[in-house]
Amino acid sequence: MKPTGIITMTTDFGYRDPFVGQMKGSLLSIHPSSVIVDLTHDIPSHDVAEAAYVLAESYSWFPPGTIHLCVVDPGVGSPRRAIILFSGDHFFIGPDNGCLSGVIERNKHYRAVHITNGRYVRTSTGPTFHGRDIFAPAAAWLARGVDLAAFGPPIEDVHFSAAFQMEVEGNCIAGRVIYVDTFGNAITNVRQEAVDGVRRSVCRVLWNGVTISMTPYYGAASGQDLHALFNSSGYLELFVNQKSAAALHGIRKGDKVIAALSPLPNISSADT
Amino acid sequence: MKPTGIITMTTDFGYRDPFVGQMKGSLLSIHPSSVIVDLTHDIPSHDVAEAAYVLAESYSWFPPGTIHLCVVDPGVGSPRRAIILFSGDHFFIGPDNGCLSGVIERNKHYRAVHITNGRYVRTSTGPTFHGRDIFAPAAAWLARGVDLAAFGPPIEDVHFSAAFQMEVEGNCIAGRVIYVDTFGNAITNVRQEAVDGVRRSVCRVLWNGVTISMTPYYGAASGQDLHALFNSSGYLELFVNQKSAAALHGIRKGDKVIAALSPLPNISSADT
Amino acid sequence: MKPTGIITMTTDFGYRDPFVGQMKGSLLSIHPSSVIVDLTHDIPSHDVAEAAYVLAESYSWFPPGTIHLCVVDPGVGSPRRAIILFSGDHFFIGPDNGCLSGVIERNKHYRAVHITNGRYVRTSTGPTFHGRDIFAPAAAWLARGVDLAAFGPPIEDVHFSAAFQMEVEGNCIAGRVIYVDTFGNAITNVRQEAVDGVRRSVCRVLWNGVTISMTPYYGAASGQDLHALFNSSGYLELFVNQKSAAALHGIRKGDKVIAALSPLPNISSADT
Repeated sequence: MKPTGIITMTTDFGYRDPFVGQMKGSLLSIHPSSVIVDLTHDIPSHDVAEAAYVLAESYSWFPPGTIHLCVVDPGVGSPRRAIILFSGDHFFIGPDNGCLSGVIERNKHYRAVHITNGRYVRTSTGPTFHGRDIFAPAAAWLARGVDLAAFGPPIEDVHFSAAFQMEVEGNCIAGRVIYVDTFGNAITNVRQEAVDGVRRSVCRVLWNGVTISMTPYYGAASGQDLHALFNSSGYLELFVNQKSAAALHGIRKGDKVIAALSPLPNISSADT
Repeated sequence: MKPTGIITMTTDFGYRDPFVGQMKGSLLSIHPSSVIVDLTHDIPSHDVAEAAYVLAESYSWFPPGTIHLCVVDPGVGSPRRAIILFSGDHFFIGPDNGCLSGVIERNKHYRAVHITNGRYVRTSTGPTFHGRDIFAPAAAWLARGVDLAAFGPPIEDVHFSAAFQMEVEGNCIAGRVIYVDTFGNAITNVRQEAVDGVRRSVCRVLWNGVTISMTPYYGAASGQDLHALFNSSGYLELFVNQKSAAALHGIRKGDKVIAALSPLPNISSADT
Repeated sequence: MKPTGIITMTTDFGYRDPFVGQMKGSLLSIHPSSVIVDLTHDIPSHDVAEAAYVLAESYSWFPPGTIHLCVVDPGVGSPRRAIILFSGDHFFIGPDNGCLSGVIERNKHYRAVHITNGRYVRTSTGPTFHGRDIFAPAAAWLARGVDLAAFGPPIEDVHFSAAFQMEVEGNCIAGRVIYVDTFGNAITNVRQEAVDGVRRSVCRVLWNGVTISMTPYYGAASGQDLHALFNSSGYLELFVNQKSAAALHGIRKGDKVIAALSPLPNISSADT
């Protein structure tokens, strides 16, 4: 698998400072034909777990061979490793702090290296901006065709935090809200494939003592009550149609959610 | 007219979530040489009328053959149609909910199809994210050269809402504030070409009982009083020089504005 | 030196309005193969000095021959000049209002022209949006290979404001906070090269009566106390590890900062 030259970026740098632009300059100085796509730069500061979710949820929409740069790096300047990981036909570059956990959880198998070869990074680098000085140059050289093995020694113990695992217990799945999007929809770690895997469907959802009905799509729900559906990425999502579920009901990241299961056939559309 | 491969995006997805990035991944997976430009992703949630204004106001600055993707789609998952519209030498793709009204208002003539051919969209799609699963793939295939007719049957009844029409009554034009920009300038639907068309000029503007003078450019106004000019897109705009007219005077989208006309020659520069 | 076709953009237009997108349309209409990179569009409205800092701090991360478009332009429509400046192997285009001061401060030498040739800009232009109508077309023609001299007469008196100069007085450097980034880090105009130039190191920093220790990297500081380091761009920066120094301590742009110097060898790592 050769990199395509498409490079995505996921950071907590925001859009106001010129940091992201400087990283792009660093990329283009080495590989001028890079095609750079912003995934998001609004990860909450230092929130490695949210970066892990966003990457895991997004990478597979890009062509195989895409390079995904992730710089959410509270340990910048400390001895934490800089790594490249190849998994699921995609390349990932970032600090070894758990930000690739979601990708690993999806694919299980990976090949990884510790970036140590000074030829492919800026060595006279300062302590605060490895995104520009280490990770972007490594991504650009990778895009130019430098082999994974040339960057440094292989590693097998990439930092992993099992943040997104839900627990299936009999007729229930115990999960959590892992992301609240800009619309105020609350996305949980309960995945459709896990429910399908036990040949069940979700008949109702419990959050904070509230019983929530399933609906097939947003517009099938009315009023300001909470409803739930499996979204287009296969996650169970709590929402209020055309309103913010987070603002109206106070749902927050980390909240517990219980999905009650019942045997197939699917009961969800009958609820609407 | 062939598409150029330039694709603009207008959505209400914001910049925080990875939704826009996923759409770009979807585009690049089908057409890797797409040149993608963000028009804005900060349309207020579900505000179809504002999307219609932004598109109408912006598309013609791009080269003929540009594809404009618009995903402000409160009805996602419901039976509303997904459409492609060709008008004024540009292509537009989005839900058939009125978001192309501004474009239609400018050009009158169009050719449109209902996207029904499963070959050019993701058919095993979920209910929440047609931007990524329907509209982006359709745009990418269109950019690759697939003919308009291949996407589905022609339609002639594209949803239209005449949101931007002003009323000319004798020596006055009755209009409204249709957009308040980041600087706090209030843009109205009163267009220079309409005033020119009746061989008049605007001598003064009335808003909320306040009489407002015309000026030729921002810097020609001083103090915190409201002033008005025709901006570079030909719309009558109320402003305070280097300040926010919206914040200082409380102007809001939807407010009524009266432009009082007088015979040519143009009196506006004499007012400053 | 020929332009590469890479064009950066620095504006105070924000991301909500379609202004930046329209500028990109204007660029692509003239030079469809432009590679456009957003440096930032969140310069505070009309803050020419901050634009000057951001440009000076960022341009050299891009390949030589990059064109940098800067549109922070409170005087739009007034007689202030539109200019192109070539300095340090990069091209800069913007209003002649001081926004290129930081670049000039770094390079001393430049070649500049006043854009007067109507062939390379939109002449029937309105008074409010020269970014789209003047600066973007000029950048696109420059990228296409039009010679600097063709745009207009040479000028030697480009507007310059020495905003970033610090004062070295004996064993102290008197500087100021010139930028507060999204993380709440306060960047000063005290530069490592000036300290190195007098063969000294910074032993401690004074701000608002508080004595601040130097550390080698963010993670070497703990608690909520202020610490200081030279960041990866060579500027002295005040920070709180993983917190906002600006929010916790009330540091603001313009605050005075004193760096106390001591003879080499470097004492900074001993402080941590």
